[in-house]
Amino acid sequence: MDCGDHHPVCRRYQSAAELLGRRWSLAVIRVALDGPARFGQFRSSVDGLSARLLAERLRELEEVGVFEKTQVGPRTFEYRLTPKGEALARVISELETWANSWD
Amino acid sequence: MDCGDHHPVCRRYQSAAELLGRRWSLAVIRVALDGPARFGQFRSSVDGLSARLLAERLRELEEVGVFEKTQVGPRTFEYRLTPKGEALARVISELETWANSWD
Repeated sequence: MDCGDHHPVCRRYQSAAELLGRRWSLAVIRVALDGPARFGQFRSSVDGLSARLLAERLRELEEVGVFEKTQVGPRTFEYRLTPKGEALARVISELETWANSWD
Repeated sequence: MDCGDHHPVCRRYQSAAELLGRRWSLAVIRVALDGPARFGQFRSSVDGLSARLLAERLRELEEVGVFEKTQVGPRTFEYRLTPKGEALARVISELETWANSWD
């Protein structure tokens, strides 16, 4: 007895959902939509974001090609969205709309 | 020395990002967009989804008003998206587009 057609969630969607479904990913990407950011800027823009998890998310998002890292000082790096990362703006924007429409 | 304006991520966005940024949330919501689903249907539609985490996600998503649960048999429940949950279709759809456009 079934109550509808449920397609298996496709592999590509599932990978994307796993990437964005890691703690703080969606917040970190949101910050970078305002422009290239340094480690401290991510931390001061996101309440409660720990240095350890931020470093983890930045590394992962760089590995999958959402961020690129540029050295801008002896020990300073800047993170900016790649075109692949910028394409997430539409997802983020719909999520903002949703967040502002529903309590 | 700054490299751009970084607004603090607003509280409402951050709550939404935390909700969808829990493991499997985005996959579980994707399944329910096909129609009301039972526990086993979620599990068979999402590769690797454990019973424990599915139960956790369903409970949380019900608590925040994204899902509603209906009893359809002695020990069988069906989960369907509320209007608030259905409004996430636009987020999911943009994520699908992104997942299909970028490797």
